[in-house]
Amino acid sequence: MEPFEVHVLGCGCAIPTRHHLPSAQVVNVRGKLSLVDCGEGVQLSLRKQRLSLLKLRNAFLSHLHGDHCYGMPGLISTLGLLGRTAAFHVYAPADYEQQLKSFCDHIEFEVVFHPVDTTQFAPIYEDRSLTVWSLPLKHSVPCSGFLFKEKPLQPHIRRDMIDFFEIPLADIPAIKDGADWTAPDDRVIENARLTRPADPPRSYAYCSDTCFVPELAEQVKGCTLLYHEATYGSDRRASAAKYLHSTAAEAAQIAKMGGVGQLMIGHYSSRYPDERVLLDEARSIFPNTILADEGLTVQVGQNKGE
Amino acid sequence: MEPFEVHVLGCGCAIPTRHHLPSAQVVNVRGKLSLVDCGEGVQLSLRKQRLSLLKLRNAFLSHLHGDHCYGMPGLISTLGLLGRTAAFHVYAPADYEQQLKSFCDHIEFEVVFHPVDTTQFAPIYEDRSLTVWSLPLKHSVPCSGFLFKEKPLQPHIRRDMIDFFEIPLADIPAIKDGADWTAPDDRVIENARLTRPADPPRSYAYCSDTCFVPELAEQVKGCTLLYHEATYGSDRRASAAKYLHSTAAEAAQIAKMGGVGQLMIGHYSSRYPDERVLLDEARSIFPNTILADEGLTVQVGQNKGE
Repeated sequence: MEPFEVHVLGCGCAIPTRHHLPSAQVVNVRGKLSLVDCGEGVQLSLRKQRLSLLKLRNAFLSHLHGDHCYGMPGLISTLGLLGRTAAFHVYAPADYEQQLKSFCDHIEFEVVFHPVDTTQFAPIYEDRSLTVWSLPLKHSVPCSGFLFKEKPLQPHIRRDMIDFFEIPLADIPAIKDGADWTAPDDRVIENARLTRPADPPRSYAYCSDTCFVPELAEQVKGCTLLYHEATYGSDRRASAAKYLHSTAAEAAQIAKMGGVGQLMIGHYSSRYPDERVLLDEARSIFPNTILADEGLTVQVGQNKGE
Repeated sequence: MEPFEVHVLGCGCAIPTRHHLPSAQVVNVRGKLSLVDCGEGVQLSLRKQRLSLLKLRNAFLSHLHGDHCYGMPGLISTLGLLGRTAAFHVYAPADYEQQLKSFCDHIEFEVVFHPVDTTQFAPIYEDRSLTVWSLPLKHSVPCSGFLFKEKPLQPHIRRDMIDFFEIPLADIPAIKDGADWTAPDDRVIENARLTRPADPPRSYAYCSDTCFVPELAEQVKGCTLLYHEATYGSDRRASAAKYLHSTAAEAAQIAKMGGVGQLMIGHYSSRYPDERVLLDEARSIFPNTILADEGLTVQVGQNKGE
């Protein structure tokens, strides 16, 4: 199966600790790399995890708090030093345009800004294999999550049947697209005999930072993997409400209501030296939950980290 | 002896590697902490090295390349989140003022900017125990080193003599200031009998980024510890000239000409997977040379790292 992976570069909150870096992830869909949030230190994390800086196509920034975007100036500058020529696309709330300009002055490649309307659940990016949707979140500043949806995959060709009927290679693309095959003797072989069904398309939803937004469950419905912030446990429900963050129980509630395949929680408050209390709280509501951690790679749809 | 320490937070160059962080140091003079350069990741390094963020009094930035200043927005933001109320002073080339303003908008403590004239060898900061001088460097943008000079220390009081003559505590400060002491019977006890000479004042010079500047040797003359960039070895003399950096041999030449106590080199190019070649080159000219490394603390005047 072609890769669909989430690499966690940072999953701490705004106050730095010795245990976590600020928010950043790389989403790899069939070899195309997107950065999702860009906390300070992203460059080094990319190096450490042996992810190619030059293979990054774009960056999606959820909101403009420093722990989600202060890695950008250094990253852009380094891409320049490394000799990048391809354009780099940045999707972020509209207010980011000025900041971005301020450190892209002398950069020799094009940095293209795409403002994201954080109030809309809408497609904001599309290529041959992928669509990205904005997910309206509720935080102290305009904030959007992102839903990465793989486009429908083609069915698998049954090599044994191709050989049996001696079907020429030139006819394979049409069969992949669903066509039946007509033999030289005009016999029609049904498509279903020549193929096995396609793998279901995979999807990944990134939701940080946000308080509990019930509508989100509908928007991420059935997605393969959901990352939802769980800054606090239910013991600090008041802090979650005050700062517009979520508890682990609320993250799990969204996962359960949305019927997602797997939940990953993160954006841990520095108040929790051991995040297993957050994991236990989430698992009591949604058992298939894992903890984000720096260096973790999750294969979307394989239901386990590595 | 009261502390005079240099903590190395980062000593790599602009291209990030898995081995080094961008330039940053903390200079601790008698418990007062100054940040010298502020590459990305400074907050986390401070945490890892258990240096108090709130004890930082000021930051001295040598120049405005990203690998020397992109840690500032995150640091300032975190100082705000930690509830800092004391003013924070920033010394940097004049052009930094606008950048600094752009991310200090909603900060609840005062950030005071002090432009540094990078063409002058002149005092730019003074308190009871310390003077800081700017050191003109030559790089592709305006750039200044910094010389931290401890003020002359007071002589040591000889406790045995104080006891012997039964000198009241109230008279000690005058003796420390050099006065003789007159006994109740009008006998005069010479100051030299009551004290041992003060420790010689210590000094630390930070010189990065720069090509070989011979005048520097005069300005750092006799300083206790010199940090001088050594981006390249003599094998890449052409790169050093092109990018206005120094070779390890040039750094050692400044140390030798200046008759400094100890040399620390850093700002290593990513071309050197093993910096010992740079160390060997420097030591062949100036034997008392050490390599900077993340996490290293150098006790100024004790001639060794720990």
